[in-house]
Amino acid sequence: MIITLKRATPQAEVDRLTDLFENQGLKVNLSFGEYYTIMGLVGDTTKIYEHDIEANEWVENVHRVQAPYKLANREFHPEDTIVYVGNTPIGAGQKLAIMAGPCSVESLEGICTIADEVKKAGANILRGGAYKPRTSPYSFQGLGYEGILDMVEARNRTGMPIVTEIMSEKHIDEFMENVDLVQIGARNMQNFDLLKAVGHLNKPILLKRGMSATIDEWIMSAEYIMAHGNPNVILCERGIRTFEKATRFTMDLAVIPIIKKKTHLPIIIDPSHATGSWELIEPVALAAVAAGADGLIIEVHDHPEQALSDGAQSLKPEKFAALVKNCKKVAEAVGRKI
Amino acid sequence: MIITLKRATPQAEVDRLTDLFENQGLKVNLSFGEYYTIMGLVGDTTKIYEHDIEANEWVENVHRVQAPYKLANREFHPEDTIVYVGNTPIGAGQKLAIMAGPCSVESLEGICTIADEVKKAGANILRGGAYKPRTSPYSFQGLGYEGILDMVEARNRTGMPIVTEIMSEKHIDEFMENVDLVQIGARNMQNFDLLKAVGHLNKPILLKRGMSATIDEWIMSAEYIMAHGNPNVILCERGIRTFEKATRFTMDLAVIPIIKKKTHLPIIIDPSHATGSWELIEPVALAAVAAGADGLIIEVHDHPEQALSDGAQSLKPEKFAALVKNCKKVAEAVGRKI
Amino acid sequence: MIITLKRATPQAEVDRLTDLFENQGLKVNLSFGEYYTIMGLVGDTTKIYEHDIEANEWVENVHRVQAPYKLANREFHPEDTIVYVGNTPIGAGQKLAIMAGPCSVESLEGICTIADEVKKAGANILRGGAYKPRTSPYSFQGLGYEGILDMVEARNRTGMPIVTEIMSEKHIDEFMENVDLVQIGARNMQNFDLLKAVGHLNKPILLKRGMSATIDEWIMSAEYIMAHGNPNVILCERGIRTFEKATRFTMDLAVIPIIKKKTHLPIIIDPSHATGSWELIEPVALAAVAAGADGLIIEVHDHPEQALSDGAQSLKPEKFAALVKNCKKVAEAVGRKI
Amino acid sequence: MIITLKRATPQAEVDRLTDLFENQGLKVNLSFGEYYTIMGLVGDTTKIYEHDIEANEWVENVHRVQAPYKLANREFHPEDTIVYVGNTPIGAGQKLAIMAGPCSVESLEGICTIADEVKKAGANILRGGAYKPRTSPYSFQGLGYEGILDMVEARNRTGMPIVTEIMSEKHIDEFMENVDLVQIGARNMQNFDLLKAVGHLNKPILLKRGMSATIDEWIMSAEYIMAHGNPNVILCERGIRTFEKATRFTMDLAVIPIIKKKTHLPIIIDPSHATGSWELIEPVALAAVAAGADGLIIEVHDHPEQALSDGAQSLKPEKFAALVKNCKKVAEAVGRKI
Repeated sequence: MIITLKRATPQAEVDRLTDLFENQGLKVNLSFGEYYTIMGLVGDTTKIYEHDIEANEWVENVHRVQAPYKLANREFHPEDTIVYVGNTPIGAGQKLAIMAGPCSVESLEGICTIADEVKKAGANILRGGAYKPRTSPYSFQGLGYEGILDMVEARNRTGMPIVTEIMSEKHIDEFMENVDLVQIGARNMQNFDLLKAVGHLNKPILLKRGMSATIDEWIMSAEYIMAHGNPNVILCERGIRTFEKATRFTMDLAVIPIIKKKTHLPIIIDPSHATGSWELIEPVALAAVAAGADGLIIEVHDHPEQALSDGAQSLKPEKFAALVKNCKKVAEAVGRKI
Repeated sequence: MIITLKRATPQAEVDRLTDLFENQGLKVNLSFGEYYTIMGLVGDTTKIYEHDIEANEWVENVHRVQAPYKLANREFHPEDTIVYVGNTPIGAGQKLAIMAGPCSVESLEGICTIADEVKKAGANILRGGAYKPRTSPYSFQGLGYEGILDMVEARNRTGMPIVTEIMSEKHIDEFMENVDLVQIGARNMQNFDLLKAVGHLNKPILLKRGMSATIDEWIMSAEYIMAHGNPNVILCERGIRTFEKATRFTMDLAVIPIIKKKTHLPIIIDPSHATGSWELIEPVALAAVAAGADGLIIEVHDHPEQALSDGAQSLKPEKFAALVKNCKKVAEAVGRKI
Repeated sequence: MIITLKRATPQAEVDRLTDLFENQGLKVNLSFGEYYTIMGLVGDTTKIYEHDIEANEWVENVHRVQAPYKLANREFHPEDTIVYVGNTPIGAGQKLAIMAGPCSVESLEGICTIADEVKKAGANILRGGAYKPRTSPYSFQGLGYEGILDMVEARNRTGMPIVTEIMSEKHIDEFMENVDLVQIGARNMQNFDLLKAVGHLNKPILLKRGMSATIDEWIMSAEYIMAHGNPNVILCERGIRTFEKATRFTMDLAVIPIIKKKTHLPIIIDPSHATGSWELIEPVALAAVAAGADGLIIEVHDHPEQALSDGAQSLKPEKFAALVKNCKKVAEAVGRKI
Repeated sequence: MIITLKRATPQAEVDRLTDLFENQGLKVNLSFGEYYTIMGLVGDTTKIYEHDIEANEWVENVHRVQAPYKLANREFHPEDTIVYVGNTPIGAGQKLAIMAGPCSVESLEGICTIADEVKKAGANILRGGAYKPRTSPYSFQGLGYEGILDMVEARNRTGMPIVTEIMSEKHIDEFMENVDLVQIGARNMQNFDLLKAVGHLNKPILLKRGMSATIDEWIMSAEYIMAHGNPNVILCERGIRTFEKATRFTMDLAVIPIIKKKTHLPIIIDPSHATGSWELIEPVALAAVAAGADGLIIEVHDHPEQALSDGAQSLKPEKFAALVKNCKKVAEAVGRKI
């Protein structure tokens, strides 16, 4: 960490700060310039928050050199991490994870039909929402626990592990007992109590990026889960909020190589939520595979126009099957498999 | 709501959609153009989500005319709402609420000292964080329940009602028993389970805007609280995330007249979090008062450089006193009082 | 276009507006609801600007149904347009255009060396900046006309057509005489006098997206060029400005299928400027090819660390050769050729 | 400037870089840490562009300490600059500049009528567009030179100096001869050839902020004008582009104190373009005055609903008169005058 002090900073203050940081186990390198004094802190600076130091009236600015995360940091863990969802390995060059299913579980029969179809089309993990975060209190809020039990039935039938979103700590037992991959949604990416709670779970976590979270904030949320004991985190990009309104969100695919450089965790891509439009899902999915994604999560519904939520961004099963087929070709072109 | 259907839409589909909406109690006006058929839906469209209708392959686009909220909507509730925090009325042209105190409660002695100082300087509500949302798991996480009890002591001593942030439903009893104004932070603005939980509380709620929430999404979160039984919501703008990095967030002061047009709820402004820099707090606070804000919430610390969080955006008590004095003059210039 | 009038709008005003629009050759469909009166305008609405109509105090809002562009609009020109740069056809499923070269032309020798190398590696168009838009007046501003003449030399030597940026109408003769593809940079996307000027040129134009331009604004800038007589426009996405700072800009690849749906023009991608980092160029380029781009424009420099501009986002020739090879595989996987 | 080198950087490379910078007249302080080597550059670093240095493969990152501008920099010019428009002084605590008039000059009679009205209401500078930047080639493009001559007539009649936008270097003589304050619009903020051209003018320049320009980029554009010989620059904030669509742009009022800290130039605010809605102009104008703006520029039209452009964001003269009256009170409350 590099701290720039104003030219007029009294020597006593420089000494006080030096002591302060040395007492935290850091080494302090000082360099005195004409306009500024520079303090370079060497050691574990993860407990120091730049913004707090800026409170000091002598500090001109603070600049972090090392990343504020440790457990997620590739520098301290150079090997790719493989996360197992049921028996399916994700990350580290393994076959791509293809998660598919409806936005919301609407009925036992409905989820089972779609599960059969997405499996046939090439999916290896079943998605489906039971607890649904909806902008309006008047919208369908999901089937809740019943939806999870329906997912379990669909898993029994197809053998695919299941992924669904947790919205509250109070449901943690339901998820522990029934779910293979526990999703933290974009809106809860900084719900720190929920992050701590799933940090104690013995289940892999799918952590979606918040719609306006920086990449570092996103990794810090993974770090929360890991610091509380759960190393099995899969990151999922789902689009960020920008001024452009032709898509619901803007898909930021450069995150794939960036996440791979900064962390050792798997990263998958959600083209359904990013684009909000079924017509855009396939080109964006192909792009994600080409850029090195470890998997995809895609909304599929057999009657999108009757879906209780997100029909506009759901693919029909036959379109999804075509997508998987085309993604396979691109995956092979970049040395991966589906 | 206006639905534009593609030119080739079969009559049978037009009829099917018409029936569908009429069965939901809406009137449907049809108008056939050369390129498009337009359906105008008249009635209560709050249960219809535009994006769901776009799933229909014949739909070109959907355009909402009436706001998706009812309880918060000024159209159905023309009078300004006054929310009482303890005995302090907020909104509807009442004296401005001046909430002040440290980012985090750090000790009983500390909070009592600051409470005395901000009261003397003109604050009428005491703020202080007990449960703290921190980006890093390695940062100070707040004193928790002990911090709330310290706030209660400071209230006993000064008579000022207290506001503090709730981060999890599991603490709801602590807040019910001890806190006068329950804050939902920006990161939890769409933590819908938490919104529902505080919707059942018999306490006023301070709802901060999410850092990338549209104004309508923010109002919809207020609607969640109100739809679950709690009409006492105060909105708080705290800056939105943009490309500009000279401030931590960009303060959007046009929201003040917009919120007053769209809703009947009070709105206050948080210049500390918006700017992230103590030097900018006063000019932004003056601007907020001039634009018609119903109050301010400001971080004050007697030793910002030693604060355990957010020192950079905290004012020293004497600077805060000057701010209140200057805000008073601006308030009077626009016909308000502090 | 759909205009929503407030419930209290006097009949005389409805009549006045109806006359106004009918006099512009439009048909007006009226539909009277309980809360609102809806006017649907049918016909050529490209001359009507929504925002102007909103000035009417009786207008609640205005909603455009048809796109505001005609010449660029696929609806009126369903076939893909092929733009020829020299003899190289771009768009409509043709071989991908691979434009490569240094950010700035630095010397005749330098551009010739790089030209040889990028040609060998698979480029078919040579890029190089002569007039350079630099944020700082103290930065290298390009060699100007001399740089263009150096490009011409490199073209003579390699046979590759050349693309370079025009920054001012006063250079239009130099470009007419020497350049094969005239680039309008992101910062000049709404320099309307320059757009009009190149609209009179008998040369193809490479129109970069402004860093905060919506897709519709970008197409409208193409429409400017086309409306002044030049139909040969190639669009180029180069990243948009968002809150995320891990990359210089955020690459929005969903624009590829969107542009193809809305317009009939070719679209190419610039991963160098979008990411600002050479390590990210290849994954983003692969993604662009997978998503259906008609070409790429990439910065290549034989000594990036000594480049006078943009070295950080330049590939070394051997890395560029590897990129082309890998892009070829992805192109084939999606049925295209390089 | 602080350059962080990777731990494995060879000593020879450290030496090479040190020489390189010392040859540019800089002092280099080196500090060797466990993970990184830090180079601190002391001296005039305005000619060094961070991004160029990042091209070096051994460089981890580069961090600028001193601002990249000199002439606009308050550090080297501590006194506020007063810019004279005609005889009207702007900045440095002078009376606020109130610029008002129509978006576009539509006729001689029209501009004269509005000029009389805004003068009566308290304006001291007349605005009006002659050359108009319009998103669509099919929209009214302004009266051009005739519009400027109409403005001159209105100046003769009222005595108010005039401000209007220049869009192309080719009109520079018209502006030199006729215009008192030459406006560079938001879309041309980085039209560097135009900046250089007005840098040679002996006229004050009103430089609007680009809709996605950072504060530093904006100041650098002022620096372009100043570096080419013209020190008389007034900055004008007109809203930035964000995800929020309730207003056309988001007004960033924190720029007022930031610009005053970073530069010595006057800054005025344009609430018309920022909000895009006449109802929001007054509250935002009051806020700007409270935050310390040196002036306002506001669109006024006597028949907004018939304006050829921007009627929605124009005030009627009587509403403008009320605004000036209310701004006066706020100005006095913060120690300024109108």
